[in-house]
Amino acid sequence: MGEEKPMELTAGDELSKKALKKQQKEAEKAAKKAERKAQVQMQQDAIDKEDISVGKYGQLNMIQSKEAYKERNFIHVKELNKKLENQTVWLRGRLHTSRAKGKQCFIVLRQQSYTVQGLAAVNEQISKQMIKFISNITKESIIDIEAIIKIVPAIIESCTQKDVEVHIQRIFIVSAAKPQLPLQIEDAARAVNESDDTGLNIKVNQDTRLDNRILDLRTPANQAIFRVEAGVCKLFRDILTAKGFVEIHTPKIISAASEGGANVFTVSYFKGNAYLAQSPQLYKQMAIAADFDKVFTIGAVFRAEDSNTHRHLTEFVGLDLEMAFKYHYHEVIDTIGQMFTELFKGLRDNYADEIAAVHQQYAVEPFKFLDPPLKLEFPQAIELLSEAGVTLGEEDDLSTPDEKLLGKLIKVKYDTDFYILDKYPLAIRPFYTMPDPNNPKASNSYDMFMRGEEIISGAQRIHDPDFLTERAKHHGVDIEKIRSYIDAFRYGCPPHAGGGIGLERVVMLYLGLDNIRKVSMFPRDPKRLTP
Amino acid sequence: MGEEKPMELTAGDELSKKALKKQQKEAEKAAKKAERKAQVQMQQDAIDKEDISVGKYGQLNMIQSKEAYKERNFIHVKELNKKLENQTVWLRGRLHTSRAKGKQCFIVLRQQSYTVQGLAAVNEQISKQMIKFISNITKESIIDIEAIIKIVPAIIESCTQKDVEVHIQRIFIVSAAKPQLPLQIEDAARAVNESDDTGLNIKVNQDTRLDNRILDLRTPANQAIFRVEAGVCKLFRDILTAKGFVEIHTPKIISAASEGGANVFTVSYFKGNAYLAQSPQLYKQMAIAADFDKVFTIGAVFRAEDSNTHRHLTEFVGLDLEMAFKYHYHEVIDTIGQMFTELFKGLRDNYADEIAAVHQQYAVEPFKFLDPPLKLEFPQAIELLSEAGVTLGEEDDLSTPDEKLLGKLIKVKYDTDFYILDKYPLAIRPFYTMPDPNNPKASNSYDMFMRGEEIISGAQRIHDPDFLTERAKHHGVDIEKIRSYIDAFRYGCPPHAGGGIGLERVVMLYLGLDNIRKVSMFPRDPKRLTP
Repeated sequence: MGEEKPMELTAGDELSKKALKKQQKEAEKAAKKAERKAQVQMQQDAIDKEDISVGKYGQLNMIQSKEAYKERNFIHVKELNKKLENQTVWLRGRLHTSRAKGKQCFIVLRQQSYTVQGLAAVNEQISKQMIKFISNITKESIIDIEAIIKIVPAIIESCTQKDVEVHIQRIFIVSAAKPQLPLQIEDAARAVNESDDTGLNIKVNQDTRLDNRILDLRTPANQAIFRVEAGVCKLFRDILTAKGFVEIHTPKIISAASEGGANVFTVSYFKGNAYLAQSPQLYKQMAIAADFDKVFTIGAVFRAEDSNTHRHLTEFVGLDLEMAFKYHYHEVIDTIGQMFTELFKGLRDNYADEIAAVHQQYAVEPFKFLDPPLKLEFPQAIELLSEAGVTLGEEDDLSTPDEKLLGKLIKVKYDTDFYILDKYPLAIRPFYTMPDPNNPKASNSYDMFMRGEEIISGAQRIHDPDFLTERAKHHGVDIEKIRSYIDAFRYGCPPHAGGGIGLERVVMLYLGLDNIRKVSMFPRDPKRLTP
Repeated sequence: MGEEKPMELTAGDELSKKALKKQQKEAEKAAKKAERKAQVQMQQDAIDKEDISVGKYGQLNMIQSKEAYKERNFIHVKELNKKLENQTVWLRGRLHTSRAKGKQCFIVLRQQSYTVQGLAAVNEQISKQMIKFISNITKESIIDIEAIIKIVPAIIESCTQKDVEVHIQRIFIVSAAKPQLPLQIEDAARAVNESDDTGLNIKVNQDTRLDNRILDLRTPANQAIFRVEAGVCKLFRDILTAKGFVEIHTPKIISAASEGGANVFTVSYFKGNAYLAQSPQLYKQMAIAADFDKVFTIGAVFRAEDSNTHRHLTEFVGLDLEMAFKYHYHEVIDTIGQMFTELFKGLRDNYADEIAAVHQQYAVEPFKFLDPPLKLEFPQAIELLSEAGVTLGEEDDLSTPDEKLLGKLIKVKYDTDFYILDKYPLAIRPFYTMPDPNNPKASNSYDMFMRGEEIISGAQRIHDPDFLTERAKHHGVDIEKIRSYIDAFRYGCPPHAGGGIGLERVVMLYLGLDNIRKVSMFPRDPKRLTP
């Protein structure tokens, strides 16, 4: 199980791009060769000229775990501050930028989102050759520096560590970056409405970013986005675990497609076929029928929809939950609503720096929510829309533009970016949705919204096998195909409700981003399977 | 994203079993019809005979969220104790067993793993008809009971709540179970070496269990196993998060199979093909190249191996981690080793009841571990085996029986069920494994074991693109096919190491179980895709 198989290797780019790439590669190869030659020459020069700095700089041998250097006092760039004045420390980071000026060289060293200015100047310890070596290090190379921390007279605006700089004593390249980068981190990190120094205002487009994701992910906003995403998962789990939920794992490979089989990926399974699960719903419900009472699961969910929009992926992460209740599904709505309130509080309180880092690049209004959350019924939404001039029938579903407008109307009226819409029309929900006992046209179902986009859809499920059969027939579903689903309720099953949340949508909408690909580390859509 | 698609529906059983099933179904249908008829008759009788208990028992209407009954004082069966003597409470649970004896009826009510005795006897409140109704409730039906808690004179050995029973005042069926169950919970829950009252000693075989998983999962051991599994995930995440790791999500659908493409499931992806990821390794390494420093991910992993053993699944849950280090991969080994020590402590301290519940059915030696964990080098293992009469060459891999034997030898010598084996021969590890700088036949790689079975395999990865290319060529790997993997290291990448852990194996071996299907809620193997 734990064996590490040779990992998967992405095949690379489309055939049509190959020729171009090859040319680029050759050019780069030549450049690299020249670079190396220069370095070798430089090192030779150093020896020739009785370099006083010999042994204090250079390209390290590949780190192969030969030595541990436990005596080296490494600290993180983010920890550098005035209190450490005159201390000698080791730092490992990337060469973010460098600028040689006569006998001295300024660099910016970056470690994750944190940056500090470094300085080397020719003196009795540091040779001209060493300065030359530093000024030739390629951007994004990983370097080790031994340096003395010094307080600076004037604030350094361009670095996160503003009141200190480090004076380089020794400097070694751990892992050199290619001289040509397919994108510049500064360009990828530039605030949406900001122009650059050159006035060219270079933007990096989405595909270039995604094609070179390992570079793109190094920007402060991206470093922050995926920490917020980890935070959403952590909060979801911690909040539900505290409420007595049990985490389960459900299979992704399933034996039969949903009715119709639309939007399902087919898998070759030994001598037969199988399918990729579009939702863990059946398995969550089986866990409820198996007495787990309250369950959640986080895992990959697959949709073979040819939708090329800002909010659709073919593979995303589902945060799913299901809960038995005593007599009323509002016990479940209230639990989910409370979970979201606690989640939003947790993000606000524990991820303020990350949220600020994202908003520095992508300026948006902070996310607003009420405690307890706003809950409206479907007819109230229809009325709000009607007041705004959009007329819908009582059994019509909301279109995406309707939802967007509704979100704006609700924001104006209630000052919240999160709300719950209860009591959807029965006609527009799946067959297993429990009808409203008091209104034949309504159902015990709900959606929840963030900034006017749906992030969770859920309902009380029918737990009675005979009634489920009746409703399936009413919907024209082939009973034979869903027999094992219906049978899951034949050995006693408590009433229950639940829902499925799209992780990436929650992160995108919480942060106010405009494209779901920004919040999926390696997104999958109908046109993208790499990297 | 969050929309709930109509869920997937398992197609059901093989054709060959259909005829038999149909017969069974018809018999059950007839039985159910008779049952219903009897119930209707009984209710009619009650009315006819001026039943003094009318309204105090019966089949509830399907709970459709019409009323909330917030005034009902529900408590969990596990909370029932002497201190609550004479209190009236509501309970919801399953009818575990019932036994009518003249004018009284004893039941055992089960809620998850907890059981309490219930009693109803004919008196001025309770009619003969009500007793008859209770005695006719089918096993596993979900019922609501209003009852008074009473202390019992003698301990009730057969229930988890031993010093109280409940005197039934009202009783309603919430969800009736079919009269015939494909397996009995008592049989499925019976301790491996225990005989039953009848002396028949009925065991439930693995396939019957899995075919009827929603019933099988209701046993105390299964309720506990999946709580321990949730605990392993929680501890893994909490321990690593505290150590500064970031949770990431990696795609399961990938564009190219690993070299050779063996053991990979193929997916139809719109007009082309894609594959299911056999490991998140490439993506974890890209996250390291993208400055996330320390990452973990929990998710589905797929292996298209036609292995029908006690420890192979075609889909399992991977607990993967990857970590940049400064100079020596032992920084990573130590982190993983410490993670396991903390994990074992966390299980021991926080899941003692669950572990005991599993061991009540499956008796095994408790899991032993050392703090810090035992770390041996590969040649030491070869020597231990050699002393025991098993001769291996210095570049031979350990077979599964070798590993089992080694586990036993180490248990005897060091009294630990967990240990780390470092420095595997280079020849038997994948091309991306960093060679040992001090020994040309060894590598910077390791496996870790629980009860003599491997649960994690890992290594320092080669982070230098040129050396990686050289090693790939040495292994005969087609460089073109792994170009994008190699390219991930061209923009500077810190030295790093990691590993992949099989969740189910950890749970199986920690608990000392004999089959991985016992610890996968809905297992997938070459022969099983349902439920």
